[in-house]
Amino acid sequence: MKSSEFDLVVRNARVATASDIFESDIAIRDGKIVQLGTNLPAGAREYDAAGRVVTPGGIDAHCHLDQPMEPPVRMADDFDSGTRAAACGGTTTVIPFAAQAKGQSLRAAVEDYHRRADGKAHVDYGFHMIVSDPTPEVLEKELPQLIREGYTSFKIYMTYDDLKLNDGQILDVLDVARKYDATAMIHAENADCIQWLTKRLEASGRSAPRYHAVSRPMLVEREATHRAIALSELADVPILIVHVSGREAVEQIRWARSHGMNIMAETCPQYLFLSAEDLGIDDSYQGAKCVCSPPPRDQANQEVIWNGLNDGLFTVFSSDHAPFNYDSPEGKKPNGEEVSFGHIPNGIPGIETRLSLLYTHGVLTGRMTLNRFVELTSTNPAKVYGLHPRKGSIAIGADADLVVWQEGERAISNRDLHHNVDYTPYEGQQLKAWPCLTLSAGQVVWDGEQFHARAGSGRFLQRGAPTLLPKRHQARF
Amino acid sequence: MKSSEFDLVVRNARVATASDIFESDIAIRDGKIVQLGTNLPAGAREYDAAGRVVTPGGIDAHCHLDQPMEPPVRMADDFDSGTRAAACGGTTTVIPFAAQAKGQSLRAAVEDYHRRADGKAHVDYGFHMIVSDPTPEVLEKELPQLIREGYTSFKIYMTYDDLKLNDGQILDVLDVARKYDATAMIHAENADCIQWLTKRLEASGRSAPRYHAVSRPMLVEREATHRAIALSELADVPILIVHVSGREAVEQIRWARSHGMNIMAETCPQYLFLSAEDLGIDDSYQGAKCVCSPPPRDQANQEVIWNGLNDGLFTVFSSDHAPFNYDSPEGKKPNGEEVSFGHIPNGIPGIETRLSLLYTHGVLTGRMTLNRFVELTSTNPAKVYGLHPRKGSIAIGADADLVVWQEGERAISNRDLHHNVDYTPYEGQQLKAWPCLTLSAGQVVWDGEQFHARAGSGRFLQRGAPTLLPKRHQARF
Amino acid sequence: MKSSEFDLVVRNARVATASDIFESDIAIRDGKIVQLGTNLPAGAREYDAAGRVVTPGGIDAHCHLDQPMEPPVRMADDFDSGTRAAACGGTTTVIPFAAQAKGQSLRAAVEDYHRRADGKAHVDYGFHMIVSDPTPEVLEKELPQLIREGYTSFKIYMTYDDLKLNDGQILDVLDVARKYDATAMIHAENADCIQWLTKRLEASGRSAPRYHAVSRPMLVEREATHRAIALSELADVPILIVHVSGREAVEQIRWARSHGMNIMAETCPQYLFLSAEDLGIDDSYQGAKCVCSPPPRDQANQEVIWNGLNDGLFTVFSSDHAPFNYDSPEGKKPNGEEVSFGHIPNGIPGIETRLSLLYTHGVLTGRMTLNRFVELTSTNPAKVYGLHPRKGSIAIGADADLVVWQEGERAISNRDLHHNVDYTPYEGQQLKAWPCLTLSAGQVVWDGEQFHARAGSGRFLQRGAPTLLPKRHQARF
Amino acid sequence: MKSSEFDLVVRNARVATASDIFESDIAIRDGKIVQLGTNLPAGAREYDAAGRVVTPGGIDAHCHLDQPMEPPVRMADDFDSGTRAAACGGTTTVIPFAAQAKGQSLRAAVEDYHRRADGKAHVDYGFHMIVSDPTPEVLEKELPQLIREGYTSFKIYMTYDDLKLNDGQILDVLDVARKYDATAMIHAENADCIQWLTKRLEASGRSAPRYHAVSRPMLVEREATHRAIALSELADVPILIVHVSGREAVEQIRWARSHGMNIMAETCPQYLFLSAEDLGIDDSYQGAKCVCSPPPRDQANQEVIWNGLNDGLFTVFSSDHAPFNYDSPEGKKPNGEEVSFGHIPNGIPGIETRLSLLYTHGVLTGRMTLNRFVELTSTNPAKVYGLHPRKGSIAIGADADLVVWQEGERAISNRDLHHNVDYTPYEGQQLKAWPCLTLSAGQVVWDGEQFHARAGSGRFLQRGAPTLLPKRHQARF
Repeated sequence: MKSSEFDLVVRNARVATASDIFESDIAIRDGKIVQLGTNLPAGAREYDAAGRVVTPGGIDAHCHLDQPMEPPVRMADDFDSGTRAAACGGTTTVIPFAAQAKGQSLRAAVEDYHRRADGKAHVDYGFHMIVSDPTPEVLEKELPQLIREGYTSFKIYMTYDDLKLNDGQILDVLDVARKYDATAMIHAENADCIQWLTKRLEASGRSAPRYHAVSRPMLVEREATHRAIALSELADVPILIVHVSGREAVEQIRWARSHGMNIMAETCPQYLFLSAEDLGIDDSYQGAKCVCSPPPRDQANQEVIWNGLNDGLFTVFSSDHAPFNYDSPEGKKPNGEEVSFGHIPNGIPGIETRLSLLYTHGVLTGRMTLNRFVELTSTNPAKVYGLHPRKGSIAIGADADLVVWQEGERAISNRDLHHNVDYTPYEGQQLKAWPCLTLSAGQVVWDGEQFHARAGSGRFLQRGAPTLLPKRHQARF
Repeated sequence: MKSSEFDLVVRNARVATASDIFESDIAIRDGKIVQLGTNLPAGAREYDAAGRVVTPGGIDAHCHLDQPMEPPVRMADDFDSGTRAAACGGTTTVIPFAAQAKGQSLRAAVEDYHRRADGKAHVDYGFHMIVSDPTPEVLEKELPQLIREGYTSFKIYMTYDDLKLNDGQILDVLDVARKYDATAMIHAENADCIQWLTKRLEASGRSAPRYHAVSRPMLVEREATHRAIALSELADVPILIVHVSGREAVEQIRWARSHGMNIMAETCPQYLFLSAEDLGIDDSYQGAKCVCSPPPRDQANQEVIWNGLNDGLFTVFSSDHAPFNYDSPEGKKPNGEEVSFGHIPNGIPGIETRLSLLYTHGVLTGRMTLNRFVELTSTNPAKVYGLHPRKGSIAIGADADLVVWQEGERAISNRDLHHNVDYTPYEGQQLKAWPCLTLSAGQVVWDGEQFHARAGSGRFLQRGAPTLLPKRHQARF
Repeated sequence: MKSSEFDLVVRNARVATASDIFESDIAIRDGKIVQLGTNLPAGAREYDAAGRVVTPGGIDAHCHLDQPMEPPVRMADDFDSGTRAAACGGTTTVIPFAAQAKGQSLRAAVEDYHRRADGKAHVDYGFHMIVSDPTPEVLEKELPQLIREGYTSFKIYMTYDDLKLNDGQILDVLDVARKYDATAMIHAENADCIQWLTKRLEASGRSAPRYHAVSRPMLVEREATHRAIALSELADVPILIVHVSGREAVEQIRWARSHGMNIMAETCPQYLFLSAEDLGIDDSYQGAKCVCSPPPRDQANQEVIWNGLNDGLFTVFSSDHAPFNYDSPEGKKPNGEEVSFGHIPNGIPGIETRLSLLYTHGVLTGRMTLNRFVELTSTNPAKVYGLHPRKGSIAIGADADLVVWQEGERAISNRDLHHNVDYTPYEGQQLKAWPCLTLSAGQVVWDGEQFHARAGSGRFLQRGAPTLLPKRHQARF
Repeated sequence: MKSSEFDLVVRNARVATASDIFESDIAIRDGKIVQLGTNLPAGAREYDAAGRVVTPGGIDAHCHLDQPMEPPVRMADDFDSGTRAAACGGTTTVIPFAAQAKGQSLRAAVEDYHRRADGKAHVDYGFHMIVSDPTPEVLEKELPQLIREGYTSFKIYMTYDDLKLNDGQILDVLDVARKYDATAMIHAENADCIQWLTKRLEASGRSAPRYHAVSRPMLVEREATHRAIALSELADVPILIVHVSGREAVEQIRWARSHGMNIMAETCPQYLFLSAEDLGIDDSYQGAKCVCSPPPRDQANQEVIWNGLNDGLFTVFSSDHAPFNYDSPEGKKPNGEEVSFGHIPNGIPGIETRLSLLYTHGVLTGRMTLNRFVELTSTNPAKVYGLHPRKGSIAIGADADLVVWQEGERAISNRDLHHNVDYTPYEGQQLKAWPCLTLSAGQVVWDGEQFHARAGSGRFLQRGAPTLLPKRHQARF
């Protein structure tokens, strides 16, 4: 093997995978990792990691980019700005959503999102489908065909009028997941309860952003989580419950697991680093910046989430990046007005800060092992969503998506971030580590100072079947 | 890099670690893995794995070799036969016990076991200490010093008259684990309950081997498990509960985990592949072959154990190899007699069959992923017992302890096994995979047909602090 | 006090209340108990109970009489035959349902049922309302007014197309219960799941009665129970979950109770004395006789129900008498045909056998105290449904509704029963006790041999607020 | 019946039993209730209850009177002052302890306590035996014989060096309870844990009274509770766990109940009305006044206890009156000194305030029904300890032990109390109800102003078998 065979060699890396940590050089050719070892031959280019931790590039399996909203509201990030922010935050794969509108074909929805991504993405991407209208055509033809084409996951909503499915529809969709070996994600909140509470809160004049949290108490999430688990049990197929926010939902998932059910779970930075108080302790409208669903809870619930991250309860850690400007008539102030909490666009930005926050508060404080950090942010998402072993690890044959970590002290400031949103909910929070190099398919996209724009370099990923769980399903009907 | 730099290259391996699976060659030099990649230069020797699965060598973290028993009883395996059997079964590291007798110094116990192992072991080994007499000298001097010297784990018994500690003594020993960062293993069964039941069973003439299971019902294990958890909580230090046998103990551990406690757990092949019926459904003495503690339970409990293996409840999967001949006055028939169950030596052989049984029934049936198999049998034991990253993975810099797997059909027969015991409790059970090559530090110790004896080639392992759990302990006193 | 003041004195009774057992005479005047004591003065009439157990008359708080069904189906019992059977079985108060049809006013429904009961009932009765159409008119006017008039309970269905409410409607109705201090009963089964399973079973040709049980597995009830609890928690008002059938639902209720929620529960004889096997182990249509919802489960679930009856989990024990003839085109064979399980009228008769079965298998086997028997079958229903202290006890001032018990051996035979149904699901089951005297308001309605018809003697009961639970509710909105 | 046949008629009572509330006169003759009804004939004496609530006299099933302690410590109350205080607080039956010293025969212990009580008690009394030395003589002869003589309950300690039994001894004693149908009470705290913590706290200079609570954290009670449950399960006999203090122990008991085990539980006023803060928030010695075991916990635990009182978790509510003077060398300051927490006599007075506190905070705030108040404080203790139906209710044939309640506002002040202790831990707490009349066997012992001394009028009660739980035990050995 001649040295010219390597496009790039990353030297002296402290390589971290989901299971191991070892000192090695990493040799890259044609965008892939081809050799590991010490004292590898020289590459065309060389990067000295100087003993720094090198992890697989992050996979953000829950983020919203350029998703059409009801006017005047508009998402602040498209595939250009969104994947730029991702890359600068150490994320080299994103899986945003292709949302079906009621009445629309799934195929049309997917094609629409391809048009939105084409030529814009800076890192590799796939699409989860959002199934909002499970007609026989969708269930019997479109879904099976799209799964075969590499869209091997979809999301089911139990709330939001334009998206939610009833229990019978959910069973129908889960049945497709079982038959065609796809991953079903579920947003678990009880729509009727939220609506009932919202109506009463608004009727009594309680409309400030902080009432958003009051309108979605933990029990609303607990109930839907229990129901989702029951539907999964009946349909006899694993599910992944997204953005789990606290104790009562966690307890339901633990109960299911202890009964042998394959219930996976996701949580997000907002359930570790924000609380309901960030929605306002008075009626100030600033709290709108942290309006997302489920809402951040309290410190006791944060502890429960930390515990679940460590002990295996959670499978993935995603951002749920849903970017809306605060001070904009297209964002948190629709038509430029301060509106009742029920009308504030739901979602907060977080695609760029996800990894650094967890590395800082998890790995560097000794709350979480480095292996577990890699597992939650990269390896498990790759497995759950059919990208492993191409993505999610530092191993022979994998894509050369890498992050080199630098330690230090830095406060988060929105002016340093690369998304297209006018605020970050983490403004001022301290970081103790951040990416000083991000490689996407062997190419430098972020060097710690500069973003290296290559719009369109991100590739669409045809994904395979999930590989995280052991195969052993048996239909009852 | 010249080809002569590699002592051995394993070609075309389907490498499995606890997190990844990838196709690669594995280059070995000086007993260590030095390079991974495809098309690596030729080594001094070559082995073509031909696309077969290659896993890290197994670590058997719970086995008893040459441990002195009360005469006439004697263990059938010493370090020669025991590690030979281990190697042929794909296990390249063993951590048997150095048991302190009451009144004996720990140092003396450790030195005694070194004499037993020296020049005999075929694979690398360490020692867990068994602390049966926690005098101030032991607690304040011997234990701290021995931990520093690389004996970083010890076992605490809650039953057996000659070994058991009371709750206060357990707290004292756990406190040492906390202060000096060692791993405490606990055998959790309530001694008084067992004795009370045994007395009543024997008094009523129920003395056949099958009453061994009756004398140690699940509640006896559940109670001690709960108590061990409480002591761990009070001492504020993780523990590992060994040989967990079924649902009620598992529920206690789940409860503790869900409350944020660091309780690790081990299970063994006998709780998956044997049941109480193997101790006899009539009063036949053959059941003595399966007398071990806790006893095997029933099928429902086996399901609970499988579930716990998959979902992360269990940390390690060990053999609890405790070798006694059946038809011998030194074994299950002390002085040559069929004795009451309470006097049958406790323990069964299993060091050679552990990995193949789990691979067959777990990996090949789709009950368990290959990654999880590696994690339970090699990576996690390495981390819990301070051997990682030297042991427990296929990674740059790790010891070249490897197993190449062959699939096929074969029934377990004691005449094919390499231990020194006159039976196996798994006689006749079908295997669908077994090691066709075992490398210990780069040397072939088993080639699928022949054992390559190198008595004394196994090295004593000075072990470090555990690395599985995140560091975050805070003393309350 | 002169002897002529007593209309009747029951002598030498072994009086059992929900808390006490004592020897006493019971003096009755004007239909009420006016004196207790030994050696009371003579009454106009005398009955020597001869040391027999005398309990308060049973209250059957869950029974269906003359409830209109979709043609051709018709209930077999009207208020004449139904209350006759009740009286002969020791039940002196019934609370059947007045079901609102969608589009109908509640008032009209109630008036309709009054017409059905007027001049027919042999024992006292009230009506639970079934709210199937919670319009603003119903919620804001009719319900409050009817509650004030003594209809202080209503039932909510989570399944059955013509009756079921969605979660938002349930919250609205529960809110009325909270504001006006009424008792809300909930039938908890998930309609979508049942429909989904039924469709698949029928599509695959599985239509025999036994598939009724398959179409309503325990999880269907567990899910709805959890959801009902969540809605109760949100609405901040107690609920009573009717006809709980087994372990998974019981666990949900225990969980709620242990978190301080006021969740009451009812079970019925079919969950103790029938099992899914009674719906058929082959495809015989005879199983239609036991088709009711939820379906009977298995022996392990029966044990869970027994345990819950004893330890306070269950509040009331009712019959859920829903009488349909088996061999009739108006009954289990609509239009005279053997139909698919999904079209068999749901419900079984049991109003006359409820007390004797529980007395036999509970009190006389030592599984249940006599006090608890009285509490479950009489005192608690009286308290929950606003009839205490007029009903539900043997105490000064209470209605003289009494049952004298005779012990012996007798097999249940439908020809001995007084309902208008052509079978009993308990045919051939042995009884060891039955009523040998039933007094309703001091009048003999059953003397152990003969029914003493007084159609129309049963009075409509205006009921008050529930008194079982301590008052302490605090609205959050 | 002539009017002269009644010694006393209590008129116009609002009679409350554990199940009912009704308006009635109560006629008493020869110390017993002989008639209930309205307009009863005149008695030799008359008392107009004027519509006030009348409950059965309280039974305090957990109190310590004149129990010898290690000198210089001495209990402040003997049977004279203790039962005087009881009577003035509405308690008409006490069951203090007859404690066996190690080496002493049980018979001798019982005889000693009879001498202490004879001629002194003002209300009826029995003795629980404390078994501290379960020799074969005790197990096989003394206990069976004493049970037959009416000492049908005994207490087992899991802590305190002079009293505690090991698990094997506990099983032996429980086996006697099973065979002879006695009630076993268990004090559940882990002795080793307490000792271990105490040693460390004292070694680090933390000796103030408030460290008493730190030395007995909830887990110490939880562990012993779980163990006691396991022993009960193994011995197959119900137990009653005394003075349960909070959530973690409650959860264990709920778990056991939900698995069908007959675990009864007691709690006490100190777990509702005191908290750990009452032991001191600084190092003041005043906290010694509230040193008892288990220690009072916090507000969240108080809520758990309230919940358990309401929902049936708790069987009895006792005082655990253990009277020591505060400012006395015989009391909380042994030898006149302020000692380390580990040497402060454990226990607080409460025999007189038990009922009024629960009536005030439970019944009058709407937290607890009046029926449940009676059940917890009188009826259930009577049933559990073999005194029902003679004690524990207002029913024909029962002893005329009655309390008439007066509502108002009054602060607790030690100078108003009748015990012989120099403080009350409830000083200054507000009462809203208290007894204005106490009848013991038909005699006025307290009239709301004056105690009517009749030392020696209290009778020793030979007790029968427990009657609370249904009979259904089956031995496994």
